Amino acid sequence: MPKIDKDAAPRSSGTRYPPPHDEPCKLREWRRLGDAAGLTQFGVSLFRLAPGVWSSQRHWHSHEDEFVYVLTGELVLVTDKGEDILRAGDCAGFPAGQRDGHCLQNRSTDDAEILVVGSRNDEDHGEYSDIDMVFTSGRYSGKSGYRHKDGSPY
Amino acid sequence: MPKIDKDAAPRSSGTRYPPPHDEPCKLREWRRLGDAAGLTQFGVSLFRLAPGVWSSQRHWHSHEDEFVYVLTGELVLVTDKGEDILRAGDCAGFPAGQRDGHCLQNRSTDDAEILVVGSRNDEDHGEYSDIDMVFTSGRYSGKSGYRHKDGSPY
Repeated sequence: MPKIDKDAAPRSSGTRYPPPHDEPCKLREWRRLGDAAGLTQFGVSLFRLAPGVWSSQRHWHSHEDEFVYVLTGELVLVTDKGEDILRAGDCAGFPAGQRDGHCLQNRSTDDAEILVVGSRNDEDHGEYSDIDMVFTSGRYSGKSGYRHKDGSPY
Repeated sequence: MPKIDKDAAPRSSGTRYPPPHDEPCKLREWRRLGDAAGLTQFGVSLFRLAPGVWSSQRHWHSHEDEFVYVLTGELVLVTDKGEDILRAGDCAGFPAGQRDGHCLQNRSTDDAEILVVGSRNDEDHGEYSDIDMVFTSGRYSGKSGYRHKDGSPY
């Protein structure tokens, strides 16, 4: 059946960010629901963010639209425009190419669950707004990596 | 802010299916959350299905992946393999090109809410599994329409 067995969906956790940028994301966990259903055109992941954990470093994408929907808990959405609280039922979208970085930080005392949808484009690259880091293209062909903004490797 | 104002998101309702195929979908309602955020690479819609209402006639897509996540209520997922119950927290995925039609039917006595994600490809076309109807390509350029399976118009 196309119904997705969430418990059997492929799981991921942590981050490949180089230290010290990995720190707030080390404990993030997600289930790859779209992969479980055989979807290839966009990713759908169910993230669980424990208290203190961030969804990512604040970033933007050159070629990929992104959408988040909060299922449980409370998160702080950080963008260039400031901070906003997202609670269960709240959602946000980030169009490709808009150079306004975003991330979701769990500053509460309870876990939060969010659904994250992102298109998949191997050309995609982007920058992290608050730190000296970029991610290069080739994320789906295994060629992507993290660099300083001057292009030098970590 | 990229936080989406759900109340201000563009709304749609009903269906353009020709009679009598429109009957179970006449009262469906949805808010176009992805459009509200300026997303173009995939659509994200929040559907509200009252008791008796179907998400669509049972169909498949040639070029578009589709994903549904049940937020509230209970729905019956119908596919070639039979029926399955989806409750809050359940989800399902339908890869492009798999000719196994699906729809969600609210046979309960309460409203149901689902998040529906679909990629956007103007080449997309498909068939309705249980009725003599197809939809032709051009849905995003205004050229799409409904036909009998022999190609004749409705």
